[in-house]
Amino acid sequence: MSSTYGENLRLTIFGQSHSAAIGVTVEGLPAGFAIDMAALQAFLSRRAPGRDKNSTTRREADVPEFLSGLTGNVTCGAPLTAIIRNTNTRSGDYDELAYKPRPGHADYTGWVKYGESRDYAGGGHFSGRLTAPLCIAGGICLQLLEREGITVRSRIRAVADVTDDAPFTGPVSHKPFPTVSDEAGQAMQQRIAEAKADCDSVGGVVECIVEGLPAGLGDPMFGGMENRIAQAVFGIPAVKGVEFGDGFEAAKLRGSQHNDPFCMEGGRVTTATNHCGGILGGITNGQPLILRAAFKPTPSIGQEQRTVDLRTMENTTLTIHGRHDPCIVHRAVPCVEAAVAIAVYDAFLQRKKEI
Amino acid sequence: MSSTYGENLRLTIFGQSHSAAIGVTVEGLPAGFAIDMAALQAFLSRRAPGRDKNSTTRREADVPEFLSGLTGNVTCGAPLTAIIRNTNTRSGDYDELAYKPRPGHADYTGWVKYGESRDYAGGGHFSGRLTAPLCIAGGICLQLLEREGITVRSRIRAVADVTDDAPFTGPVSHKPFPTVSDEAGQAMQQRIAEAKADCDSVGGVVECIVEGLPAGLGDPMFGGMENRIAQAVFGIPAVKGVEFGDGFEAAKLRGSQHNDPFCMEGGRVTTATNHCGGILGGITNGQPLILRAAFKPTPSIGQEQRTVDLRTMENTTLTIHGRHDPCIVHRAVPCVEAAVAIAVYDAFLQRKKEI
Amino acid sequence: MSSTYGENLRLTIFGQSHSAAIGVTVEGLPAGFAIDMAALQAFLSRRAPGRDKNSTTRREADVPEFLSGLTGNVTCGAPLTAIIRNTNTRSGDYDELAYKPRPGHADYTGWVKYGESRDYAGGGHFSGRLTAPLCIAGGICLQLLEREGITVRSRIRAVADVTDDAPFTGPVSHKPFPTVSDEAGQAMQQRIAEAKADCDSVGGVVECIVEGLPAGLGDPMFGGMENRIAQAVFGIPAVKGVEFGDGFEAAKLRGSQHNDPFCMEGGRVTTATNHCGGILGGITNGQPLILRAAFKPTPSIGQEQRTVDLRTMENTTLTIHGRHDPCIVHRAVPCVEAAVAIAVYDAFLQRKKEI
Amino acid sequence: MSSTYGENLRLTIFGQSHSAAIGVTVEGLPAGFAIDMAALQAFLSRRAPGRDKNSTTRREADVPEFLSGLTGNVTCGAPLTAIIRNTNTRSGDYDELAYKPRPGHADYTGWVKYGESRDYAGGGHFSGRLTAPLCIAGGICLQLLEREGITVRSRIRAVADVTDDAPFTGPVSHKPFPTVSDEAGQAMQQRIAEAKADCDSVGGVVECIVEGLPAGLGDPMFGGMENRIAQAVFGIPAVKGVEFGDGFEAAKLRGSQHNDPFCMEGGRVTTATNHCGGILGGITNGQPLILRAAFKPTPSIGQEQRTVDLRTMENTTLTIHGRHDPCIVHRAVPCVEAAVAIAVYDAFLQRKKEI
Repeated sequence: MSSTYGENLRLTIFGQSHSAAIGVTVEGLPAGFAIDMAALQAFLSRRAPGRDKNSTTRREADVPEFLSGLTGNVTCGAPLTAIIRNTNTRSGDYDELAYKPRPGHADYTGWVKYGESRDYAGGGHFSGRLTAPLCIAGGICLQLLEREGITVRSRIRAVADVTDDAPFTGPVSHKPFPTVSDEAGQAMQQRIAEAKADCDSVGGVVECIVEGLPAGLGDPMFGGMENRIAQAVFGIPAVKGVEFGDGFEAAKLRGSQHNDPFCMEGGRVTTATNHCGGILGGITNGQPLILRAAFKPTPSIGQEQRTVDLRTMENTTLTIHGRHDPCIVHRAVPCVEAAVAIAVYDAFLQRKKEI
Repeated sequence: MSSTYGENLRLTIFGQSHSAAIGVTVEGLPAGFAIDMAALQAFLSRRAPGRDKNSTTRREADVPEFLSGLTGNVTCGAPLTAIIRNTNTRSGDYDELAYKPRPGHADYTGWVKYGESRDYAGGGHFSGRLTAPLCIAGGICLQLLEREGITVRSRIRAVADVTDDAPFTGPVSHKPFPTVSDEAGQAMQQRIAEAKADCDSVGGVVECIVEGLPAGLGDPMFGGMENRIAQAVFGIPAVKGVEFGDGFEAAKLRGSQHNDPFCMEGGRVTTATNHCGGILGGITNGQPLILRAAFKPTPSIGQEQRTVDLRTMENTTLTIHGRHDPCIVHRAVPCVEAAVAIAVYDAFLQRKKEI
Repeated sequence: MSSTYGENLRLTIFGQSHSAAIGVTVEGLPAGFAIDMAALQAFLSRRAPGRDKNSTTRREADVPEFLSGLTGNVTCGAPLTAIIRNTNTRSGDYDELAYKPRPGHADYTGWVKYGESRDYAGGGHFSGRLTAPLCIAGGICLQLLEREGITVRSRIRAVADVTDDAPFTGPVSHKPFPTVSDEAGQAMQQRIAEAKADCDSVGGVVECIVEGLPAGLGDPMFGGMENRIAQAVFGIPAVKGVEFGDGFEAAKLRGSQHNDPFCMEGGRVTTATNHCGGILGGITNGQPLILRAAFKPTPSIGQEQRTVDLRTMENTTLTIHGRHDPCIVHRAVPCVEAAVAIAVYDAFLQRKKEI
Repeated sequence: MSSTYGENLRLTIFGQSHSAAIGVTVEGLPAGFAIDMAALQAFLSRRAPGRDKNSTTRREADVPEFLSGLTGNVTCGAPLTAIIRNTNTRSGDYDELAYKPRPGHADYTGWVKYGESRDYAGGGHFSGRLTAPLCIAGGICLQLLEREGITVRSRIRAVADVTDDAPFTGPVSHKPFPTVSDEAGQAMQQRIAEAKADCDSVGGVVECIVEGLPAGLGDPMFGGMENRIAQAVFGIPAVKGVEFGDGFEAAKLRGSQHNDPFCMEGGRVTTATNHCGGILGGITNGQPLILRAAFKPTPSIGQEQRTVDLRTMENTTLTIHGRHDPCIVHRAVPCVEAAVAIAVYDAFLQRKKEI
């Protein structure tokens, strides 16, 4: 099922941009885990709109209400369901969009798939707003992983043509614009401001690193860490590419350059380099797991665009009004962390069956 | 389960490089479909080793034996199982590898995961040889898709630093080295020959295009065509990145450049460009679906490499003997077609429930 | 996952007896279906407590709130989520039950499985109250099946030692105590009244018949209609047996008595008898599908019972106070219809892929 | 998928009665487990035809060939595949059956579902012969459970109108006709002989007991032990009912009779009785798990029966020739053990994730 992810931990995401609520049900959480609600809220706030000058002015508190699965703040073993009410909706903004599909959006494909009864308002179930429940589930998984000594961190690696190639040593989640190099971050925000001024938008790349992983997570073939993580990360709207370790750059290397030599360090097996991004044969090797996700530029732009009228089946034009992000990459940073945390924790539970 | 793929069509791959046989079971095939066995064998031959001067000298006929699921060559509705016997094995080549994990291979992670009882010979279940049963299942799906007017074609897009940027207009599967530009193909083979001479290897990129797709295949979120295809394609050993449409290049563009304007053509909705690779919101829009997979350089190289001795937990070196490909990208071309065909046919069956 | 059912239609049930809400998410519903909300509410009311003199005095309106998946009352293709707020809870009734497991309930096994953090109030996630969201999903499936000319009807077949062997010709859902024979119904209610007077309870049997089914639904082996339906019906608390057609009586017959002869009727293949309950090899044969589910007597009784104190690990006794049904069989009738409707509609969608 | 079972351990059964081979793939077996091949073969022999005077004269050695998943006799972590070649087939026996469906068999429903291309010979994929691969997987699970101190035993509880109500204390698997009471066994065999003399058949009931189970296996709702086991056991052809503990008899009891009082015994919680069959809320309570499966009489009988001609769509008659069992209940005894062992071991692995 398309709104469901996971074999050992399973989450089901529901809701549309303008439905009564959005939410998530998570099955398979260990019983007896005390969720740090303040930490979870802080994590959710990193994704929430209206946090900085680069984002949409739509503001949603994004405070989850827990309907089930807890006694107090402790998991009780039953499925956990959390919802967020949709309060600040402006459906009037979307009337024209009932018959004029926005380029780069799922309006047209949703119309083909679900017909006239589809919920097009705000993108419906395809909306980026559905990453809020993803972050609820992911935020809980982040805490469960921390208990195991595993951390998941992401940063903006690129926006438009600006890249941040500084080594990803420390955390950046406290920054409103989470790059490692502040200089690169300034240049990126400049690109965003330029795009905004042009009623346009830009894309970018988010990089994620998972540290503290034991060797042995993941499975061969379709159950590899790459497969598991890609399936989760492509669930974030606008992701068009996912790569691990050296990724597409690896294709240009020779084996003698790309192979990571094994060596002993402090009595345990390690590798001298980490071109493979911590994954061999789909299974973690104990080194940091590294991946990058490419985000296309926000499809909602203020310029007039060519489209069709689905009532008359004729060419027409569309100018999108309403509130839109000229760049969603910085807001996508916690979403990537969430998706990766979910995939990693699912693999972690899988591994528990084996040992 | 890690060796299983698909919700509507489900395949389970079994076998190790040097086990009695490798094979695949496919559930959910429509009954009454006559498999073109000659076409299937021709497809399998494109993957088989020993076909050209760039490959390993290990030769396996790779002729599947069908154990179940057919009456004659026609599917009967029961699960189809096909196996290929492993005849030409040289296990003696692998004795040292019981305790010296090869860099870039799954030897070490397999040892961590499965312990001493793992089957390390030839890479065991992690071996590229397991793409043969993938190609059996994929070859059947290719025929099923053809019946629906859907074609899946792949080509070598890059080897090492050489790229083939010629437009992917016609088929290239008849070529032993399937590039569009023969000039680029020559240069790539030159790189492979150079690597071979250096006891080294190279990686590359395979591009795949699916044409004739109806709009409406795929689902939102985790069931998008990107998620489905990535989960299948990362099941091919050595894949380290998957991107759709403009992929990582999309991250550098502006929305006004990347958005594909809708327009009418011959009475139906189409797009003026195809930056999105035929997928919007995870769902096909009727345009060609385009993706690329990055393959790391073959990890088996003839040079001495650093590794560890798992018996003594000390540093040591390893020189891999035996038969190995300096490049597997050209052999991976049908594997990508197979994986994509399986994912697309699974989505096709999913769609049948809806209409 | 244990609170999830279905391959083509998938429902996930969440909530505990005394959590903020209980609910269900249903994925895979066809888009564009107008739910008859009045009919759904009428169906839910058949299950709701406090409807008749035989039931608990706890009253819950059981009016679902739809959070997602609809535009108006029409399915939009996105997952449908409906919740029911828990308003009339009296948790104080349950304090002693934190450490004294009730015989016949899941209190002890829940404590073993989830530990001290389990939600024991009112049975938590194990409560019969969780059949309300089952009935929401099932009520929608009943309407979807009706559109296909398929009806699902249930009746009380037995309570305690009283059986209703009248042929199941017409509907009984309009009766507060849905037997076919009113005389049998009176005798059953007499048994319930006697049990209530003794602070005791009784069990019974619900019979379900599905008519209008096409031949060809269901699959061999683990996907048979028996497997699918049993997996759903055993999800209703207190069910301890499920049988199809002649069921356990079939074990006493000879083949010549049990085999249903095929014959032509009005140009189509039918059977002269229906001992098999409409299922051969797991697949519907076009005859009515018939099953029965055995319900154990309500475990909550007013008599003093032996139990243990989980704090001291010593023997003790327990007298359960609060509101309880001396018989839940009549309230279980729509629950069986719901579970069967879900299983049948899931098989119906499965069949759509094949033809 | 219908020929697949399990979430944590997953088996896929393939083959038809007269295909080249039948077999099973098992994923999720723990690596490093040494299969006792002699014990497995002895288990398979209990199911094999031609073992005693009550069975068909078709003889198949039923010696599995392991194609993958082992190094020697030790599991290596990769999917295990075992096949049995079909050697002793007499397809000529089945020519008339191409168009005359046998009453009580899946011939007609298979024709509806798969059309003319179905494999009807010997019942195809619906054949009882497919319980051989079930027993391979189940026999391995039995050994894995034994390692955990868990035993699974079955016996014939009834044949026709003869029941064996002797307490199920010791093992009976060494008996060719595995009843507890030899006297009852004699009477049952008398019924079989009588049926055979009449060219007829009889049904019966198999009872299964699982001992040594820890409390805490299984999950609420659809993941209960009843649901899991029923889904597996209904996969055995001819099963028409499954009940747990007192089963359908429980429906006749009062709560005060059926509830099992908790009490302390040797420092641990136990129950004074076991009406619930060791399962409360779907979860094991540490008492023996008890179930019964009802088998309909073998549908293949030697008497002339009414059926239809699918070519002309007219009524006709059929007399089945060939080799058939007048009773399959004694051969079904190990099949029930196999199905239950698979379901229990799957739940056992599930539980490992939680603790």
